[in-house]
Formats: sequence, C-alpha cells, structure tokens
Amino acid sequence: MKRNFNSDNVTPACAPIMAALQAANEEPMPSYGADPLTQRLQAKASEVFEREVVVFPVATGTAANALALAQLVPSYGAVYCYEAAHIVTDECGAPEFFTGGAKPIGLAAADGMILPEQIEKAVAFAQEMGVHHVKPAAVSLTQASECGTVYTLAHVKAIAGVAKRHGLGLHMDGARFANALAHLDCSAADATWRCGVDVLSLGATKNGALCAEAVVFFDTKRAEDFARRRKQAGHLWSKMRFLSAQLLAYLSDDLWLKNASHANAMAAALAHALQDLKGVRLLQSVDANELFVAMPKALVAALEAADFQFYRWPYPGLGDAVAIRLVTSYATTASDVEALAAAAQSFPACS
Amino acid sequence: MKRNFNSDNVTPACAPIMAALQAANEEPMPSYGADPLTQRLQAKASEVFEREVVVFPVATGTAANALALAQLVPSYGAVYCYEAAHIVTDECGAPEFFTGGAKPIGLAAADGMILPEQIEKAVAFAQEMGVHHVKPAAVSLTQASECGTVYTLAHVKAIAGVAKRHGLGLHMDGARFANALAHLDCSAADATWRCGVDVLSLGATKNGALCAEAVVFFDTKRAEDFARRRKQAGHLWSKMRFLSAQLLAYLSDDLWLKNASHANAMAAALAHALQDLKGVRLLQSVDANELFVAMPKALVAALEAADFQFYRWPYPGLGDAVAIRLVTSYATTASDVEALAAAAQSFPACS
Amino acid sequence: MKRNFNSDNVTPACAPIMAALQAANEEPMPSYGADPLTQRLQAKASEVFEREVVVFPVATGTAANALALAQLVPSYGAVYCYEAAHIVTDECGAPEFFTGGAKPIGLAAADGMILPEQIEKAVAFAQEMGVHHVKPAAVSLTQASECGTVYTLAHVKAIAGVAKRHGLGLHMDGARFANALAHLDCSAADATWRCGVDVLSLGATKNGALCAEAVVFFDTKRAEDFARRRKQAGHLWSKMRFLSAQLLAYLSDDLWLKNASHANAMAAALAHALQDLKGVRLLQSVDANELFVAMPKALVAALEAADFQFYRWPYPGLGDAVAIRLVTSYATTASDVEALAAAAQSFPACS
Amino acid sequence: MKRNFNSDNVTPACAPIMAALQAANEEPMPSYGADPLTQRLQAKASEVFEREVVVFPVATGTAANALALAQLVPSYGAVYCYEAAHIVTDECGAPEFFTGGAKPIGLAAADGMILPEQIEKAVAFAQEMGVHHVKPAAVSLTQASECGTVYTLAHVKAIAGVAKRHGLGLHMDGARFANALAHLDCSAADATWRCGVDVLSLGATKNGALCAEAVVFFDTKRAEDFARRRKQAGHLWSKMRFLSAQLLAYLSDDLWLKNASHANAMAAALAHALQDLKGVRLLQSVDANELFVAMPKALVAALEAADFQFYRWPYPGLGDAVAIRLVTSYATTASDVEALAAAAQSFPACS
Repeated sequence: MKRNFNSDNVTPACAPIMAALQAANEEPMPSYGADPLTQRLQAKASEVFEREVVVFPVATGTAANALALAQLVPSYGAVYCYEAAHIVTDECGAPEFFTGGAKPIGLAAADGMILPEQIEKAVAFAQEMGVHHVKPAAVSLTQASECGTVYTLAHVKAIAGVAKRHGLGLHMDGARFANALAHLDCSAADATWRCGVDVLSLGATKNGALCAEAVVFFDTKRAEDFARRRKQAGHLWSKMRFLSAQLLAYLSDDLWLKNASHANAMAAALAHALQDLKGVRLLQSVDANELFVAMPKALVAALEAADFQFYRWPYPGLGDAVAIRLVTSYATTASDVEALAAAAQSFPACS
Repeated sequence: MKRNFNSDNVTPACAPIMAALQAANEEPMPSYGADPLTQRLQAKASEVFEREVVVFPVATGTAANALALAQLVPSYGAVYCYEAAHIVTDECGAPEFFTGGAKPIGLAAADGMILPEQIEKAVAFAQEMGVHHVKPAAVSLTQASECGTVYTLAHVKAIAGVAKRHGLGLHMDGARFANALAHLDCSAADATWRCGVDVLSLGATKNGALCAEAVVFFDTKRAEDFARRRKQAGHLWSKMRFLSAQLLAYLSDDLWLKNASHANAMAAALAHALQDLKGVRLLQSVDANELFVAMPKALVAALEAADFQFYRWPYPGLGDAVAIRLVTSYATTASDVEALAAAAQSFPACS
Repeated sequence: MKRNFNSDNVTPACAPIMAALQAANEEPMPSYGADPLTQRLQAKASEVFEREVVVFPVATGTAANALALAQLVPSYGAVYCYEAAHIVTDECGAPEFFTGGAKPIGLAAADGMILPEQIEKAVAFAQEMGVHHVKPAAVSLTQASECGTVYTLAHVKAIAGVAKRHGLGLHMDGARFANALAHLDCSAADATWRCGVDVLSLGATKNGALCAEAVVFFDTKRAEDFARRRKQAGHLWSKMRFLSAQLLAYLSDDLWLKNASHANAMAAALAHALQDLKGVRLLQSVDANELFVAMPKALVAALEAADFQFYRWPYPGLGDAVAIRLVTSYATTASDVEALAAAAQSFPACS
Repeated sequence: MKRNFNSDNVTPACAPIMAALQAANEEPMPSYGADPLTQRLQAKASEVFEREVVVFPVATGTAANALALAQLVPSYGAVYCYEAAHIVTDECGAPEFFTGGAKPIGLAAADGMILPEQIEKAVAFAQEMGVHHVKPAAVSLTQASECGTVYTLAHVKAIAGVAKRHGLGLHMDGARFANALAHLDCSAADATWRCGVDVLSLGATKNGALCAEAVVFFDTKRAEDFARRRKQAGHLWSKMRFLSAQLLAYLSDDLWLKNASHANAMAAALAHALQDLKGVRLLQSVDANELFVAMPKALVAALEAADFQFYRWPYPGLGDAVAIRLVTSYATTASDVEALAAAAQSFPACS
C-alpha cells in the first residue's frame, strides 16, 4: 500500500464534511447564498472569531487570496510578501489578474517569514520613487508559512504595526490556518484581528473539506462590494449551500482544530523520528504539518522505491544531499508515520 | 408544502451525482486534475461528443462562460450576443473582466435568439469603424436561450456560417444545454461542432449536479494554455476529482438527458395546462424547462398566496397582466405541476 | 483647393499653441510635471473654473475619458451613457480596459442626449438584479454631444440630481467642451461643477492644440492616486511641460473660447445656408461645430466631386436621401463655408 | 548658471525636431495616422533597419514598453528581465496592467545585464511548476541598460538563442537605444533583429525629441492587431502627424546617432576626468550616457552647493562614500563637463 505524503490536498474529504453535504441536500433551498446554511455560517464564524465578521465562501485558495488582495490593493499597488509565497509562485499570476495589475513584491526569508524591517525598507523605497513605483497597499503573510513555520503572535503584531503606520492592509493567507492555530494554541481571534489582520483566507480543503475556503473580513467595512467582486470572478455558487455546509461543519465541534492537531502531531512524530538519523537534517522548524528534510540521495531513492510518496524539493546549498517535502494531514495515520520512520531508520547508512 | 418553480438551481443534487461524490472519496488521489476520474471524464466526453474534445471542469456557469470567451476574444474584441443574454446582464461584468476589457455587444431578439443578419450587420459596422471600434471576435449563443426557446440546428448553422466567414469564434452558453438537446432530439455532436460551435459551456448544476460545469473545446488547438487561464482565475480545484466525478456521472447512462427530458416534460405539461385558460398567455414557445407566462394580476397573487414559488418577470406591454417565470427541473414532480394547474384552473376568472 | 469638413482633428495647431511650445523649449526643466508650466496650469485652471481644481494633462481624449472613468468606476461597475457615445463606439473598449472590466451601458437618444428618467430606470433595474448585475457607478455625458447638440444647464443638473441620489459619479466627456461652452454662453464653472459635474475630460486637440486634453477634478479628493493611475497607463510625459504649455496657452486670453466661437459661427453659417434648400434637411440642432445633414444623393456626389471633404454618415430612415456630417473648426474660413454653400445652392435640384 | 546632469529628459527638444513639428503644421492632414508623414516614417524606419518593419509611434516609453509586452505576453505569462529594470521599478505596474496580469520576473545583475543561463534556469523552474506558475513568454532587455552599460551583440545573440529555444519573444527596451547603437558602432539591423530581437521600444524623447517613442516590430506578423491595442490604451493620437514628424526627423540625416554620439562623448569625457580622482570610483562601465560614480560625501555636497544638478543614487556597500548618477545628453556642452570636472578636481581631498 502506498503511503502518501505528497500533499494535504490528495486526501478525501473527512466524514463530518461529507455528512454535512448530504444533510444539505434534502430539499430545495434559495440559491446564491440566500439559504439558511449560509446565514448560519455567518453566525458561526462570528462566534468563532469573537466578533462580527463577514465571510465569503469560495472553492479554491487561489480565489480566496486573489479576491482578498483585489479588495485591498488597487491596480497600481504593491503587496509585500515572502519571495516564494504561494501568491507569487503558485497562483499563475492570479493576484496580478484579479487586481488588474498590482505587483506582489517578494522579500527574502530563509524560514518563509518576512520581517517588519524588510517591509519598512521596501515602503521607504517606494516612497522615494513616488509615482513611478507601485503604491504600497498591502502585506500578505502566509500562516502557516510556505516553509512549514508559524509566525508568533508578536511577529504578526510587529508586522501589523508597520502596515498600519503606512496605511497598508494586512492579509493572511491561511490555507493552513488551522494548523497554525493548533500550533499557536490560542484563540482564532488572538491569531488574527487581535494581531492586526484585516482579511483572512481561511483554508478548509487541505484540512478535510471537499472544496471550501473562506474570505473572512474582520472589519466589515472592508467587505463593501466584495459580493460583486466574487460574482464577477465566477466564484459565486448558485447552490451556495454546499460550500457553506462544508465550512459550517468545519468550524463546528472544533473539527478544524481536531483535524489540524492530528496532522501537526503526525508531522511532529515524523520529525522526531527522522531528526537524529545520520545524514538527515530538518531544514525548517516543523511547526505545522509540513517537513522539509535534507537526506542522502540514496535514502530518498530507497523511500521512493518503497512506495512512499512525496516531492523532492528544490533547495540550494545541500551538496550531495537531497531535500524532500513531507506533508501530513488529518488522514495521515500513526502507521503511515511509523512505516516511513522505520524505513528510514533501517536504511544502512543512517543508523 | 411549498412548490418551488423559482429556478432549476434551487434543487438538491440528484442521487447519482451524490453517489459519484461518495465513490470519489474513498482514497487519496493526485490533485489538480492528475486523478483517474478526470482522465475518464476526457474519454467520456470524447465518446459523447463523437470526437476528441478537451474538457475543463469548473464550478460555475459564469466561470465557464467568461473563461471560454477569454480564450476566444482579445481585450480589444467584441462578442455578439442577445441583448439580455446571461453574459450581458447576469454575470456582473465577468466577460469584460476575464478578457481584460472586451465588449459584449447585445442584439435585440423578441424570442431570445439572434439572427445571422444581425451579426452580419454589426460586423459590417465594426469594419467600417476600423481601429476605433472593438474587433469582431466571437458570437455567443445561449442554448436553450434566456427566453426558454431553443435554436434549431439550421439556425445555429446559419450563425456559424457568418461567424466563420468573418473569423469569429462561436461560443455556446449551454447552462441548459441538456434541456436543449432533449428538445432537439439529436446527438450532442449534431447540436454542437457539427453545427459549427467551437466552445461549449456545458452546464450540469441546474440539471442535477451539486456544482459542475465544463468548458468543452471541440477544436483542441483552441484549448492551448486554457489550463493556465483557469488556474489564474482561481478555478483549478486542488481536489479536482470531485468536479470530474460529478460530470462523469452526469454524462454516463444518459443521466443528463433523462434529467433534462423530465424537466422539459414537466414544463410542457404546465404549458398545456395553462395555455387555454382565460386571460393567460404563453409569452414564449416552451421548448425547454422555462415558461414565461402572462396572467391576470389577481391570479398571480392567488398562486403566491397558495405558496407556489416563482418570480414575477419584467415584461413591457402587458397592460394589466403580469408576467411570471416558471422553471421546472429534474426534481419537479407531476404532482407539483398538477397542483399549480389545478390552482390556476380553479381560479374564478380563468374558467 | 480642398475644403476640409472631415473633422476638427485634421487641422494644424493654432499659432498661439505653437508659440507656447517654442517658448517652453528654451531651457532644461524638471521632468514628469515638476516644471513651472505645469504648476502655472494648475493655477490657471483653478482661476478659469473659479475653484481649486486638480488638472492632469494627457495626450488623447480616449486616455482622458478612460482614466477619468477608471477613477470613478470599479471593475464590477456600470457607466450610463448615450448608446452611440464616443466611449461606447469609438474607443476600442478603452473604458472596459482601464477599469478592468466595467460596463458602459448605452441608452437610446435621438439627439444624443440622455434623459434623467432613463438613468433612473436603468439604476432601478440594476438594483433589482443585485449582485448579478454590474453596480451603478457613474454617468458619462458628452458635451457637446456626438450629435452636435448641447445639453442645457438644467438638463445637466437634472441628471446630476439622479446621479447624486444614487451615489454615481458624473463624468463629462468634453472633447468639444469649449464649443459647448461658447454655445451656452455661461462660465466654465456654471457649465460644470455648479451643475454637479465631478470630472471633466477637457479637450483641446480638436480646438487648436497639437495634442492636449486634460482630466479636471472639481472635487480634489476624487483625484487621489490619479497620478499613479496615469503613470501606469503610460500617460505621464517625461517632458510634461510640452503638454502643460499647450493647455496653459489654451486657457489663456480666452483662446479656447475664441477658437470655439469661431468654429460654432462657421457651423451656424453653414446651417443657415443649407437649411432652406430643397431636399436638404438638418437632422440635428446645430448647437456647436458639427452638422448632420440629409441631402439628395446626387447633391452629396456633386459636393464630393467638387473636392469638398466630409463623411457620409450612417442614418436610418432617410429613404433616398443620404446623411453627411460636416465639421467646422477654428481653422474653417468664411470662404470655405461660402464655397460649400454656393455649390449646394447652385445644384439644379435644390433651387 | 545651473549645470543639469539630472536626466536626459530635462532637456528641450533639439532644433531639427522643432523644425519638423513646424513643417508638419502647415495644412490639414488626415487624422489617426492616415497622413503622409506617418507613411514616410514606415518607409524611413524600414530603410534604417534594412528590412520591412512596422512602426507604431507613441508618446512615452512606458507606453511603448507596456504595449510591446502586451503583444508578446498573455495575462498568465512571465517576462524575464533585470530585477531593477525600468519595467519593474519605474513604470508603476504598467506591464502588469497592459497585459492583464502578467509577471515581470526580475533577475539579479550587478551591471544591469542579465545572463542567458539565468533565463534558462528561470524557465526550467517554470516548467517544473507547470500550470501553477506563469508561463515563460518573453525576455526584456534594456539597451543601454539601467546601469549605463551596453550589451554586446554576442550577449544579445546568446540571450536570443535561449529565448527562441523556449518560444519566448525578445523585447528590447531601447529608451536609450541610440546611445547603445553609437557605442556599438554597428548598424541598427545588426543591433536588433540580426541578433534576434523581435520588438524594439525605440526611444527618442531622451535623445532630442519633444515626446516620441516608437514600437518597432521586425516580424510584421507579430504586429497583428497592435493598432487596436494602442487605440484601446489611449495611445493613438488624432493628430498623429506630430508624433511621426518627430520620429521621421529623428531617423533622418543620422540625427539620432549624432545626438547620441555627442551625449556618449560627454559621458566619456566626464568619466575620464573623474576616474582618477582620489576617493572617486566609477561603479559601472560608462558605455552610453550615464555615469554611476562613488564619491566622498563631502565632494557630493560641494558639487551640489556649486549648483550642479544630479541625483544621489541608492547603492549598497559603499561605506562612507555616496553614489551619484550623472546623465549627459545631446544638449550637454563640453563646458558643462569641464565645469564639473574642474569643480571635482579642485576639491581639496581629491587632488
């Protein structure tokens, strides 16, 4: 049997989400979000985030991010982010397209987490350049980051401070927000608007949903006209109930946190098992559900031959070693982890 | 109990679609369309359309239409269509947005179906205007139309003739394509590429799916880079299998035609029951699953009071009468129809 | 010698404009608008319009209109205007492109001037359609209109009233604003912001400049970030002084009004000479510097044969007659007018 | 008297250009480019470039670059260029806006000139990323570069080789193309299409014109529909003759080369005078008309105090020294150069 560590998006939807879809399918409901499930989702999200929020369900993370940024950034604006952020390298230019031309400006960060002073410096450059340069308009943080690390609350607050000082909106790409939250072990409110986050792309797909993300506005005034923006982009579902049902289940009974905690625990177990092996090195702190690991080439080949599935990852400066990415999910089992750990531990050169 | 004739998008998903979703949820699958279901969908669609086609599943009809048009039309291009086409009045500017500025040019049509000579004339005007005017680039037909009518094959062919002569792409908005096909009682190939259609937005959501539409390219060269276009618009699902599974079920075992035929039959039965009532008049030919009916205001009020659900429709020139739209679907029952018919027939002024 | 009534944009630049360019060319000046001429233009325009305005020079009318609209209208917005407005039929989709997808919604008007109640009705329709339809965002009036007519101040005020009531910005396409102003015989302030106009595209090219238009904001807050919008569109000149110099000369010593009054007078003289000829009919009121005239086909051919230059104009419902457009300008001479009048008057069938 | 080394765009237009404008102003001419001067420009450019080219005059370099790139690159495409290229940092997102969302991907280069292997590597990364990443579509080189250096023909050819191999269009931002050409001392054909350049933004404004740049297509098929693209962006002048007249004069009688050679010679003389001064260091090879010079802070202050005008330039790693940029032009005189040289040479610490 194959053990799949490719990504958290290869998993099926989890049982409570599927049950919610079934339950939503019993009878006719008004279309385009006028249904009772969508209304209940608003209430549920407001409860979870401990304030009146506005939530817009969409089907993909790229849509959530690009729509959120389009709300914050004019066509002549700049978004400051990590240079290898998902919005920069993995969304085929969606932020530029949705904003009508804005520019994500990538900042270097060895651990995927940008620093307040980098933003400060980039804004100063823009100010000096004046009208010739795009206007500083937003910051986008990925939480958990693309390196599997998680910003501390103090770190987010410091960035929000810079953002507020310069009138920039603060967007959080939370494709793996639940994993970050489980790691931070704080409330959803603490991790977002209490730290200064204006808009959150809240992911569910990678953490057990079938297809559901949400754009969450903490300042409801920021959400003005967002409904039309979503519609114009083809992201308003006629049978909206089926998106809302997933998100409602996701936020209910701590499902999102349970799923994420399990995924994180599996990642931690993997990290624990691998980190002391000879020739093996964790390249990043394992804060959430992703591991970036340097390994001897022969070990990587051996794991692949043993039908473990994962991606080799580009990583400079490793010499003969090879970097791989391992992703765990709500569906990863202890037995999956043990199997991989055992295979690595039994590899001759590692023991 | 409420009888809902509001729209075919208020319905639940039909049982075979839900079963297909469940079946697709058994195990991990590669993401972003590299899964076996998506592959099978390509084969199935090619079989159904009797030639090698390329199919791109998306979640909404607006996405399907706007992405298809963006593939055919440059930012400085024109799309000729019915003046009250869905792409003109109901998509919040999606075609303009996705194309980067192209212009849908609406043509008048009492029955929702534009004529070849109207396109010919509009193209001649554009040619005379030269560089100052948008470039004729595509025609978009809605089949079944926004008036519930269905273009004959000869009509589509005549329009395709004009389109080909002027180098215009021919797009078909098939949000209710299955209903049209059931009415035409011909093959899917006859109704599309054999008539000269280049790209089809194939709807499933209104006809029994949960959320599934497909952009179908009959000339595979036309599809170049469409995958990136879909991705940039946030319409590439990571768990693509769940879109493909719906469409695969939809095209299998004639499910789409069975659902559509039923909906059409219910509409025909309604039309039959209503058309001879005093003061009642069918405003359009009932070819598919929509009825536009002029009624005495009091009858409309009586039906509303009896908990029948439908929309009053703007319609000029009816004097004291009121226009309503009734939509049937795969889920409409003979008892729904009979109940409405009985209520109308028993209305004092109508008998 | 050819007498040219094709358009007011076939003319050379007038002498004061050329002199201003020469004067601006004496020495180095700061680039991108930091020069003294651009500063003086701001002051001059504020004086002319009797309030603090912000002026952005650009080189073309299409740029002025599209940039102004992009400032007023979001990508999911609607602009209400005459159905054959320049922004609809003659700018190759520039408004759609600059706004990122907004929709000019054309309203019918036999004389080129739309009515308040048409806008009211269109807004009501949009409100009923909700999120599915583009958001009412602006009105654009062309003054003088594409039919050569001029809105009265009361008419503009009535439209502004509707616009304000629904939160729409009011844009005036003033490619021939000076001609309208000369006709109205009021102050520039009366003709614009005192009537409720928010942004004016002020044309100079057709009225004696080499290449100069200006976007004038009456509410300076509306102009926020417009400098970047202009830059991003490639419309910020490095040697801005040469645009500003033209506009400064244009607004000085009543040059704009003198040029326009002359052009209007020539048009009126032509109208006077032609209107009583047998078989000849003015199709529109000649308020500014354009005439739309129905003539016997043979007369049109005779004038063409005599080397008078003008355009035949599409015009339905004229039977055997042919419509032509005659445009006068600052450079049209009384002798040009007399020559054409004489040729028409001596045409056998007309006398 | 101030000596202005701020930029080559602070200069007046040179005498032959002004004379050409006057000559073009004698009589009416057809508008929108149907005039004889625009026709003659096509012929002249074809003669200068030794093949049939298509030339589109526009007023600004940003417009030329962004329109050219929009012709080569789809909304989901990538343009590879120097990380501090004008199109990245100085055009306020114009490439993103004109393309509808494409992404300029900046590559590091100490001397402003990117290497073939950098492009190769970036393309390989994109290919590995597939649909998630923007599609490699074009390379843009600035010639002369933003660092005042000039690519050799062999260098351009090597980059063109990579571009052709991967199907990328090759754009040259020639805002200072004449300066590069004068340095290379070869034919315009050798410096462009014979090296594999597909489209050139040919600058004239910085080299003696009032406001004129041209987009030059060497492969005429590449120019399809470009006229509409220019129109939609508001860059088609109604009195086009005034743009064409400038460019015609520019390319006639070697005016462009004479102006550029003079500017280059002035820059070389400045470099020669400064390079051996104590504490002064040329930061880049002075190939064209720009110098980047590190100087003691006190010297910079002294030159500023003596009314020499130039920009301080951000430059990391200079310690106590300060970087400045000096730009020469067709209008720079030997006396300007001698004055600055003398001031620097007489600075106590430098001798």
